[in-house]
Amino acid sequence: MSGKALVNLSAGESKELLATARVGHLAYPSHRGLDLTPVNYALCDDVLYIRTAQDGTLAALAPGGEWVAFVVTYLDRLSQTGWSVKARGKIRGVDEEAEVPGGDPVPWAEFPASMLLALAIEELTGRRLG
Amino acid sequence: MSGKALVNLSAGESKELLATARVGHLAYPSHRGLDLTPVNYALCDDVLYIRTAQDGTLAALAPGGEWVAFVVTYLDRLSQTGWSVKARGKIRGVDEEAEVPGGDPVPWAEFPASMLLALAIEELTGRRLG
Repeated sequence: MSGKALVNLSAGESKELLATARVGHLAYPSHRGLDLTPVNYALCDDVLYIRTAQDGTLAALAPGGEWVAFVVTYLDRLSQTGWSVKARGKIRGVDEEAEVPGGDPVPWAEFPASMLLALAIEELTGRRLG
Repeated sequence: MSGKALVNLSAGESKELLATARVGHLAYPSHRGLDLTPVNYALCDDVLYIRTAQDGTLAALAPGGEWVAFVVTYLDRLSQTGWSVKARGKIRGVDEEAEVPGGDPVPWAEFPASMLLALAIEELTGRRLG
């Protein structure tokens, strides 16, 4: 198999792709060291909104101030092409009753109680494969 | 939309699912704070083998000793069901010429020079959705 080229995307291209998906992976600091989890999200302007379980490990991020990294990757297994977009910034909890501009990130999983986190994107990079 | 239940998987179930995929996301410490990237991998016994670019940020993990988190998520968008498996452990570089038991994790992207990392899994958890 011959590998394909990785091409850097502009911030504009990265943002467009970020707006097309609904599930990404969030890396964040936890009391056990760094942690990683898949999350549902919605994008509005330069903010990623993430809805999660109120009693989960992500809830510890609510006070705000932690730097996190968030990646969305789309891959076509057959053609082995795709793209990956990474957002970095600080995350904090926002009012659970707040209306998310552009629509709430409805979680696929059923949470007995949910909380809303907002990641203010300070850095956006992306790569396309193939 | 009604959310679906999240069910914890056993370590055995998690390992079986981990063996079915080829791309995951790796969260790791970097000089810029925590970082996150999609990677190709191969699983053999309790070790995840990751092949990456020699000049990339992952290369800084080669000396070994860093704790990392690795997640593989499979989602069916139509039915909104799927699974996610997380492995945690220490990562280190291994001899690039080494033969990976069970087959090399061939990267989808073409790297001018590649290196091999090994994640010794110390903790394996998984969840199924739906």
